[in-house]
Amino acid sequence: MVLYVVGLGLGDETDITVRGLRAVQQCDKVYLENYTSVLGIDHETLSTFYGREVILADRDCVETGAEVIYANAKEQNVAFLVVGDPFCATTHSDLILRAKEIGVQVEVIHNASVMGAAGACGLQLYHYGQTVSIPFFTDEWRPDSFYDKIAFNRKGGLHTLCLLDIKVKEPDFEAMARGRTVYLPPRFMTVNQAIEQLLEIEDKRQEGVYSRSTVCVGLARLGQPTQQIVSGTMEELLTVDFCAPLHSLVIAGEVHCLEEDMLRQFSVHQLKQ
Amino acid sequence: MVLYVVGLGLGDETDITVRGLRAVQQCDKVYLENYTSVLGIDHETLSTFYGREVILADRDCVETGAEVIYANAKEQNVAFLVVGDPFCATTHSDLILRAKEIGVQVEVIHNASVMGAAGACGLQLYHYGQTVSIPFFTDEWRPDSFYDKIAFNRKGGLHTLCLLDIKVKEPDFEAMARGRTVYLPPRFMTVNQAIEQLLEIEDKRQEGVYSRSTVCVGLARLGQPTQQIVSGTMEELLTVDFCAPLHSLVIAGEVHCLEEDMLRQFSVHQLKQ
Repeated sequence: MVLYVVGLGLGDETDITVRGLRAVQQCDKVYLENYTSVLGIDHETLSTFYGREVILADRDCVETGAEVIYANAKEQNVAFLVVGDPFCATTHSDLILRAKEIGVQVEVIHNASVMGAAGACGLQLYHYGQTVSIPFFTDEWRPDSFYDKIAFNRKGGLHTLCLLDIKVKEPDFEAMARGRTVYLPPRFMTVNQAIEQLLEIEDKRQEGVYSRSTVCVGLARLGQPTQQIVSGTMEELLTVDFCAPLHSLVIAGEVHCLEEDMLRQFSVHQLKQ
Repeated sequence: MVLYVVGLGLGDETDITVRGLRAVQQCDKVYLENYTSVLGIDHETLSTFYGREVILADRDCVETGAEVIYANAKEQNVAFLVVGDPFCATTHSDLILRAKEIGVQVEVIHNASVMGAAGACGLQLYHYGQTVSIPFFTDEWRPDSFYDKIAFNRKGGLHTLCLLDIKVKEPDFEAMARGRTVYLPPRFMTVNQAIEQLLEIEDKRQEGVYSRSTVCVGLARLGQPTQQIVSGTMEELLTVDFCAPLHSLVIAGEVHCLEEDMLRQFSVHQLKQ
């Protein structure tokens, strides 16, 4: 019996690999992790495509109730589906490790992740530094550790991929206080919101890591038919509507020759023509 | 008519995505780029799986004769297959750009790349700095620009993924001088060779960027059924036989708690028990 941890890639149900599809079709239970990322389609489309019921696994389920998922894999084949590649989120490494510790056989099936697909914007993957996450600011919580990481990358002339926060099935604490279990509608950070937060931190820190005229690339729905890639300065990208999620943002470092040619095809100025 | 640039992932014929397979099966011509990376199977297995002849495209063909590939795509559907993800090598971005310039419609189909799958070793992808390439040293040519990049990453506590050189269809200049066109057998750098070269450069530069006791992870045949992952110091890994290609190497930066737990399962000391 095997726990298959299967990457689904970035777009829709057809972005699973043939190896992954064959594995899922051998499974008695199929879980979909749905809080660190989302596909461009819903889980019912996956169910139909696989001919298997797909059970949604939220953060609670994966981080505190994961035994249910992997202990089952001692008696039957279980698939744990992950948008992108299985190793792109820490939480999946943890699940794999714990499953192995209780003697479950684990097979990982890789797929495209935003970290590789970001190459589509024309900035070469060899010239990226560390990836950063940009969390939604709240009134009380406006963390800026990403700023130091971006500073470090830019000192080396490197590009920075910024993964933007998503909030799925977040508890509504006001309703909870009134004794009801209610979840807020899902929220996905836009390129515009990310740039606003980045500029707020630059205004506060004033270290000149980047500015309104720094070249960036906004990525939306990467790997999906409606994929949108637009390059321009931070200020220019603030005015672009990237529409439906997921969005990511790349802050360019030094831009090489071929990279410049590639970026040009996505220029915000072409949009306006 | 479309030029499909299709990532094949890392393992065998079944690592193509369902979307990719459907595209290939609609194509009149199918090319396989076979000099920047290789799968664990030969191209005839791909031909049989697709029900299409697969034409090998070597460096000459892709870098100087690529018009043949993309100009065809004006009259018929053409697939250009790439091991890993299409954007992991600069040369593919260039091909896509030139195809678009002459008005060819291009569709990119993403897949797993070593840059994402390297997460399998347990070091989190968020803690990687820039990726470096380690070329085969020759008697006259022993470039060490990777040393400065590794130094930069380690200063930030970051891990470094080292992609190791492969030489496929390299001309045999001695035979050429005698008027015959002969190619050398393919060569793939091993983890051991990479470490030897790294240590040679450290001995020469003496900047203390890493040493024989620096923790590394050797990766072989990532994403294939015979995948091998071993962690240990550079000195320890020098004695490990990683067998068949492809190999890659990760030089660890600061190792976090969960990462330590993950690495432990791949420790060289477990091998020897």
